[in-house]
Amino acid sequence: MNFEFQNPTRIIFGAGNLARLGDVVGEYGKKALVVTGGGSVKRSGVFDRAVESLKAAGIAVAECSGVEPNPRITSVARGAETVRAEGCDVIVALGGGSVMDASKVISAAALYDGDPWDMILHGQENVYVPTEALPVITVPTIAATGSETNCGAVITNEETKVKSFIQIPLLYPKVAVMDPELTVSVPRDQTAYGVCDLITHLTESYLNGIDNTPIQDRLAEGVIQTAMEWGPRAIADGGDVEARAQIQWAASVALIGWAQIGTDAPYPVHMMEHTVSAYHDITHAAGLAIINPAWMRFAARSNTAKYVQFAERVFGLKAKGADDLDCALEGIDKFEAFLKSIGCPTRFSELGIGDELFETYARDTLKIVSDGKGNLPGRPVMSVEDMIGIFRSAL
Amino acid sequence: MNFEFQNPTRIIFGAGNLARLGDVVGEYGKKALVVTGGGSVKRSGVFDRAVESLKAAGIAVAECSGVEPNPRITSVARGAETVRAEGCDVIVALGGGSVMDASKVISAAALYDGDPWDMILHGQENVYVPTEALPVITVPTIAATGSETNCGAVITNEETKVKSFIQIPLLYPKVAVMDPELTVSVPRDQTAYGVCDLITHLTESYLNGIDNTPIQDRLAEGVIQTAMEWGPRAIADGGDVEARAQIQWAASVALIGWAQIGTDAPYPVHMMEHTVSAYHDITHAAGLAIINPAWMRFAARSNTAKYVQFAERVFGLKAKGADDLDCALEGIDKFEAFLKSIGCPTRFSELGIGDELFETYARDTLKIVSDGKGNLPGRPVMSVEDMIGIFRSAL
Repeated sequence: MNFEFQNPTRIIFGAGNLARLGDVVGEYGKKALVVTGGGSVKRSGVFDRAVESLKAAGIAVAECSGVEPNPRITSVARGAETVRAEGCDVIVALGGGSVMDASKVISAAALYDGDPWDMILHGQENVYVPTEALPVITVPTIAATGSETNCGAVITNEETKVKSFIQIPLLYPKVAVMDPELTVSVPRDQTAYGVCDLITHLTESYLNGIDNTPIQDRLAEGVIQTAMEWGPRAIADGGDVEARAQIQWAASVALIGWAQIGTDAPYPVHMMEHTVSAYHDITHAAGLAIINPAWMRFAARSNTAKYVQFAERVFGLKAKGADDLDCALEGIDKFEAFLKSIGCPTRFSELGIGDELFETYARDTLKIVSDGKGNLPGRPVMSVEDMIGIFRSAL
Repeated sequence: MNFEFQNPTRIIFGAGNLARLGDVVGEYGKKALVVTGGGSVKRSGVFDRAVESLKAAGIAVAECSGVEPNPRITSVARGAETVRAEGCDVIVALGGGSVMDASKVISAAALYDGDPWDMILHGQENVYVPTEALPVITVPTIAATGSETNCGAVITNEETKVKSFIQIPLLYPKVAVMDPELTVSVPRDQTAYGVCDLITHLTESYLNGIDNTPIQDRLAEGVIQTAMEWGPRAIADGGDVEARAQIQWAASVALIGWAQIGTDAPYPVHMMEHTVSAYHDITHAAGLAIINPAWMRFAARSNTAKYVQFAERVFGLKAKGADDLDCALEGIDKFEAFLKSIGCPTRFSELGIGDELFETYARDTLKIVSDGKGNLPGRPVMSVEDMIGIFRSAL
């Protein structure tokens, strides 16, 4: 284990905290760009309450609404332009993962004269690493991506069909104001997707990481178990604020970095999913629910001991030994059954996606991340044929 | 759950990192006060290597050596005076928990004209909360207290026999340079005490906290299990750098704050131990190993379900139900047996301490922390008689 870690984001967690937004934002600026998505925060009244809190604290407000579920680089450019035109000095991300991701990139793009797409990893060249950014305050309205407390953002270029990311310490939000009451109106399916998303973030680092990271393993297993215990409660009764709080905290911990420290893990399932959802307007987590179990069945054959540990610790199965592939696969079956039980799709056909573009997804994935030998990094690495096989097994 | 959390300390972890110290310190200052303890860092050559790295980076060095195992406020005052006399602008804490604790208080005391003891909680009045401090870089040479990544410090007033603490965000170290190779020369008994210490930090928040903190519970259990798996390896073979790394990381995670978030837990075992070790020059963790199991047997009677969870998840026991006190007590027996197995004392008599001062410890503890009704905060709260009973059961 050899690593560096720092997460400076201040977390303010608890029901009712939306009312404190103005005071918090006032520590960082005088005029806020409030970034929002498709309109649900306006319909629910959350936007008005946020603006009311900001105005009560003397903060002026400009707006960037309509950020897409897979946020587009054109929305980032539009937000950055509004920041410059309106003279905003702080950014409030009020929404889900896509709004928070877009806000982070806006915070740097507003201070950069070039094309914001320069900042997003796409191929190994021509990437501009920003060195300054406006402060971002995240106010998540859905428990899902952990974007509120991490420094990553996933952005889609609708022109080139590339969905990729930026992840640099500069983009840590200054503060995450997490109010579980804002998540009670999240529909049942989106709640389930949030649970799937947070679990998949953990399985990526857990299953692709190096050996001998026992604390990170225990933490990942513990958060997965917590999500499986409390997720169904939040799905069954959206108004259960206690369950909403547990799931929101689980989602945040899943990506705050604690479980990933020192694991040195690539994120092959995310890479593959990003390519798929660049072609189909599907929810990110729906793609994850389909690809992750299929990938796990592939990877368990070469990394069996870790999957046995997963099966034993998360699902209480008893293996015959560290090489008990049957036990490993039974754990994956149970994991897939959990995803189905909360309403996630686990086959492409459920979303009307056929096998026509499987090779295209695989080749596009390699355009974003490659080990330089034509393979997707992961444990194990995957060739184009391996990826096609994984997609096919999830048809 | 309603909480705020921020831990801004940057962690640099891995074997060989001592060589990077100068470059890291150079980001914060030009002249370092290097704080050390009883001389082992000089005998081992670690001090010379640290100074070499500092000088190679152009950092001038002043020294404050001889900080006691239970660091005294007079040492803090001495260090602060050296900072002022020598014009230091950054502090390097090179040693164990006591050195790091003293360094944090020195960092604030150097910028404060009054008595440094004003900053330490002692009674509810007359406490000065510092608002500025020099940057502190911690370089732990023992895995124990987590002081390297938290904002707390325990200091003893040798005149008044009061051992108490300060814990404020200002005192977070800027960087923790954690090099497990520095811990390979820690003797067997101190290694065992480190394991006991880190576990006790976790049991405090785990057993005294509020209900429904499932992620914090899982994390605490996971770190305790990791410490119980890897601790005996580090004790059996001090040169096992892998085991040393796991224990050092476990100790840091135990007190970095992650497992404590939102638990709202008092630390009654620490409070009682501090009073005992203010009268006897015993190692903090030896006192914890004696008092913690005794306290657990007392507290399990009113908080049985949590102790059953501890017994089941940490020791794999099977309870008849959440009120199965026998199972809860069996878990505590197993925990105590683990402490004995690694060489910790579990009775006062092993340290030659009799019952003469039991009432004095109890009354002194209440002078430091009280619920205002003559009880020590904890789950459950404890009267003087309760504390005496706990001490007596550990005679």
